[in-house]
Amino acid sequence: MDKIIFLIQSDDRKGLLATISQYFYSRNYNILHCQQHSDTQEKRYYMRLELDLKDLQTTRKQLQDEFSEFASKLGLTWECHFTDYRTNVAIMVSKTSHTLFDLLSRHHEGDLNCEIPLIISNHPDLEHIADQFRIPFYYLPITKGKKEEQEAQVRALLKQHHIDLVVLARYMQILTPVFVDEWYGKIINIHHAFLPAFQGANPYRRAYERGVKMIGATAHYASEDLDQGPIIEQDVVRVNHELTPEGLRKVGKDVERQVLSRAVQAHLEHRIIIYNNKTVVFNAEH
Amino acid sequence: MDKIIFLIQSDDRKGLLATISQYFYSRNYNILHCQQHSDTQEKRYYMRLELDLKDLQTTRKQLQDEFSEFASKLGLTWECHFTDYRTNVAIMVSKTSHTLFDLLSRHHEGDLNCEIPLIISNHPDLEHIADQFRIPFYYLPITKGKKEEQEAQVRALLKQHHIDLVVLARYMQILTPVFVDEWYGKIINIHHAFLPAFQGANPYRRAYERGVKMIGATAHYASEDLDQGPIIEQDVVRVNHELTPEGLRKVGKDVERQVLSRAVQAHLEHRIIIYNNKTVVFNAEH
Amino acid sequence: MDKIIFLIQSDDRKGLLATISQYFYSRNYNILHCQQHSDTQEKRYYMRLELDLKDLQTTRKQLQDEFSEFASKLGLTWECHFTDYRTNVAIMVSKTSHTLFDLLSRHHEGDLNCEIPLIISNHPDLEHIADQFRIPFYYLPITKGKKEEQEAQVRALLKQHHIDLVVLARYMQILTPVFVDEWYGKIINIHHAFLPAFQGANPYRRAYERGVKMIGATAHYASEDLDQGPIIEQDVVRVNHELTPEGLRKVGKDVERQVLSRAVQAHLEHRIIIYNNKTVVFNAEH
Amino acid sequence: MDKIIFLIQSDDRKGLLATISQYFYSRNYNILHCQQHSDTQEKRYYMRLELDLKDLQTTRKQLQDEFSEFASKLGLTWECHFTDYRTNVAIMVSKTSHTLFDLLSRHHEGDLNCEIPLIISNHPDLEHIADQFRIPFYYLPITKGKKEEQEAQVRALLKQHHIDLVVLARYMQILTPVFVDEWYGKIINIHHAFLPAFQGANPYRRAYERGVKMIGATAHYASEDLDQGPIIEQDVVRVNHELTPEGLRKVGKDVERQVLSRAVQAHLEHRIIIYNNKTVVFNAEH
Repeated sequence: MDKIIFLIQSDDRKGLLATISQYFYSRNYNILHCQQHSDTQEKRYYMRLELDLKDLQTTRKQLQDEFSEFASKLGLTWECHFTDYRTNVAIMVSKTSHTLFDLLSRHHEGDLNCEIPLIISNHPDLEHIADQFRIPFYYLPITKGKKEEQEAQVRALLKQHHIDLVVLARYMQILTPVFVDEWYGKIINIHHAFLPAFQGANPYRRAYERGVKMIGATAHYASEDLDQGPIIEQDVVRVNHELTPEGLRKVGKDVERQVLSRAVQAHLEHRIIIYNNKTVVFNAEH
Repeated sequence: MDKIIFLIQSDDRKGLLATISQYFYSRNYNILHCQQHSDTQEKRYYMRLELDLKDLQTTRKQLQDEFSEFASKLGLTWECHFTDYRTNVAIMVSKTSHTLFDLLSRHHEGDLNCEIPLIISNHPDLEHIADQFRIPFYYLPITKGKKEEQEAQVRALLKQHHIDLVVLARYMQILTPVFVDEWYGKIINIHHAFLPAFQGANPYRRAYERGVKMIGATAHYASEDLDQGPIIEQDVVRVNHELTPEGLRKVGKDVERQVLSRAVQAHLEHRIIIYNNKTVVFNAEH
Repeated sequence: MDKIIFLIQSDDRKGLLATISQYFYSRNYNILHCQQHSDTQEKRYYMRLELDLKDLQTTRKQLQDEFSEFASKLGLTWECHFTDYRTNVAIMVSKTSHTLFDLLSRHHEGDLNCEIPLIISNHPDLEHIADQFRIPFYYLPITKGKKEEQEAQVRALLKQHHIDLVVLARYMQILTPVFVDEWYGKIINIHHAFLPAFQGANPYRRAYERGVKMIGATAHYASEDLDQGPIIEQDVVRVNHELTPEGLRKVGKDVERQVLSRAVQAHLEHRIIIYNNKTVVFNAEH
Repeated sequence: MDKIIFLIQSDDRKGLLATISQYFYSRNYNILHCQQHSDTQEKRYYMRLELDLKDLQTTRKQLQDEFSEFASKLGLTWECHFTDYRTNVAIMVSKTSHTLFDLLSRHHEGDLNCEIPLIISNHPDLEHIADQFRIPFYYLPITKGKKEEQEAQVRALLKQHHIDLVVLARYMQILTPVFVDEWYGKIINIHHAFLPAFQGANPYRRAYERGVKMIGATAHYASEDLDQGPIIEQDVVRVNHELTPEGLRKVGKDVERQVLSRAVQAHLEHRIIIYNNKTVVFNAEH
């Protein structure tokens, strides 16, 4: 069943639920699902609404224009998505393949509602996987001091392919602030540690040295400050003294895979609202 | 902050959210929190509403009488709770003490919003724990063939103490159908297995014999059929070949404690709706 | 580093560790790792030894012949494996692809120490995945009343390809007792439920109907009785009232993937000993 | 069954297992359980041996003197424990009661093999809990600039009561380096975060601000550097945007309880070896 999804946020105050639900009900929309959150600390209100696309009696533009008027009176910030549109996702990788493989197989399984028109890498190593799944692979190496040039190429490709979301599936390069700002809320990165523990390089080695009893992974939106963006999803796995840094790396692969794919899925299902460098992630329904 | 909580269920149809939220908004209530669930299989709608008790401008009876009228027009089944009322809980035990201890210390910690006016047991063994927490302890043994008589005493005590909820904290007796029916939805039992696996007696022994790699616990509302009532909460813990049945029993204690206390907490916070021998358990907010 | 792995079991008695470790030490083997388990209920002793393959001064046959003599005096049951040998694995599937995909990508990632010379199916649907990974695909349909004939073909293929392990990756057919007996301890099946709960058909539908709060998966060696063989690995995932049977199926895919791949990995790393329809699964080291 | 437990560590080299197990076997000891770990990075060997106390044919002193001679030849570092000795544990608290309650009820349940002769606090608030469990309570406040004086009193009490282990059950004071050094490996602290994330003060507040999706707790041996000592046990619990810092604190209580009690239990069962600011924690058997 196709749906219209509204993601709404505003300052919290009386009557928002009644007013907004009344708005749609009076226009004859069936509200299939409504999730809310009131942040009592920040006095902020968040809402996710699912309407039945079959109830749409106007053009999509008209729906949005009218809601826009209503929203501006109430001071709502909002997005509107239609589930029959398939989000265009670009995956960026370096040499490590497990999260790439995982995303591609889930996509192939029909569990990620998106198109993946291209894979971009600063190394040629994973081209054979792109081939295996018949997805165009762009090898854009970074020459010393010429990162901006490479990024210009990357950004041109993203534009050309109408990309909505970039997934950094263990892309081992720091993006420039210009890129990150332009794409804020549209780049998901996986960090192979339980942030804010072990930010930066070599988290498994450092986890080994600290002797932790669990290791984790964190998916977050990229922001200017490395590993500091809004966290979408985290998970951990129990480890013990028997594991070397290499062993931790192996065991960690499964957590990385799961955490990244859950975060991408939440984004594709329009279940995430960003505010104040944090995320509201509404539960999935199936 | 004290709250009014409505638990509502009905057949699913268009406009329920708008109509109900409008009902309260127009009477000047602030909806602090609203959670819903549409069961698309059963075509059933479930809702939990939190209102601010300070917004109450009528008597409590008036609020309920008026809502009752509204609800009967819409065909809603509903309950209304006020969080400044402390639920009266009776705990029933036999000889095993860990879940009793856990409930009493959480209560003492202020994490269970209830009174515990009495503990009832068919064995005298745990009286000292009741003493330690200064809770009256009633020892009501079961003589062969005279379970009805003992239950009559139990039920008299429950009535006399205005009990709202009975928690069977490893009470090793099967209640009679009459008792269970009268108290349907008001008796929570803990079974020391991951139901429907290992229903009935000796679940740890049977888990050992089957060689399972995880053991669990299940909290459910008591129903006529043993271990078949609506499940509220379950959890598991990883085990391995090294554990004897006695070892499983020890390891299982923590899961039993957690599962039972989470289920009791969900009930006390009015987050559970029963329908069709299943439960909708809404998330806690804190 | 390549290793010699001994899996040993016997009746428990004094001195086994000292005697066996002395045996190898006196022959100048370095014991890299030694894991044991004494089952005090069954009075049974289990041991897993890792030796450094570089210490081997004889032929492999000679090592085994000599140990065989020593073992028969002590009444040990044993197996000996060399990690430079790559186990031959056949995967059997029907129409569901997620566990197949997972096994193939882990294999491609280098995380499963085996060869996968063929995939066998009773349906043609998944041939394209086999193609994608360039693994020969055998489509052997089952005509009514002719299962024995199909199985004869399957068993001929297994023989021809020197298969050591068969993985039933959601192969939706019950194997005949003859096949299962011949291959006892060499067929791993994944059941999409937390056994012994929901044995048999449609576990997700039945989990939905029972209203469980977690669903699971179980990997076990196939035995004559359906879903009754020695359990190797289990895991669960938390679910709630929002999930339909179809939603449970989707959520369950990740658990199935993980449980099956962990079980296969334990088998390939020679960490499993079967006794009395149960398994000892020694921890992995990395 | 009572046992003799040896904890051994040394540089790793060939033959340690054979030599040590032979040592005990030739003296007619039954090795009930033997666990080992070879740290291939540090080239370090760790071993835990359980012998049957009934096999002891000498005095305990003689056993240790003789082993001492053997060990010094091999360069082993070791400890020897007898499970019929009950470790003396002092618990130190401030105002928070949940971990205290948990330790005392587990002790009362018979799940912690120790005596608890006293509870020490820098605040008077929790005396009633000590009373409830009939354990002497010492209120030793800290006057500004006089921490050394208070610690002198604490240390005198520990000596007087023959304390073997100090458990800091949310004792909100930093111990002086002198104290910590003297008691190295004998003070277990619980930190209410997943270290090394959120070291220092107010971890729940900071977890809230960072927007993490899981919170955790860490039990570690106290060391001179705050929250930097050898980690014994960690665990986490899933949280989401709905939780305030106060909500995180509530949800975190269960993890703190479990992590601290598991760490204390591992220490009491002599399953921990410290080396290089890290721990080897051998599995429990039951």
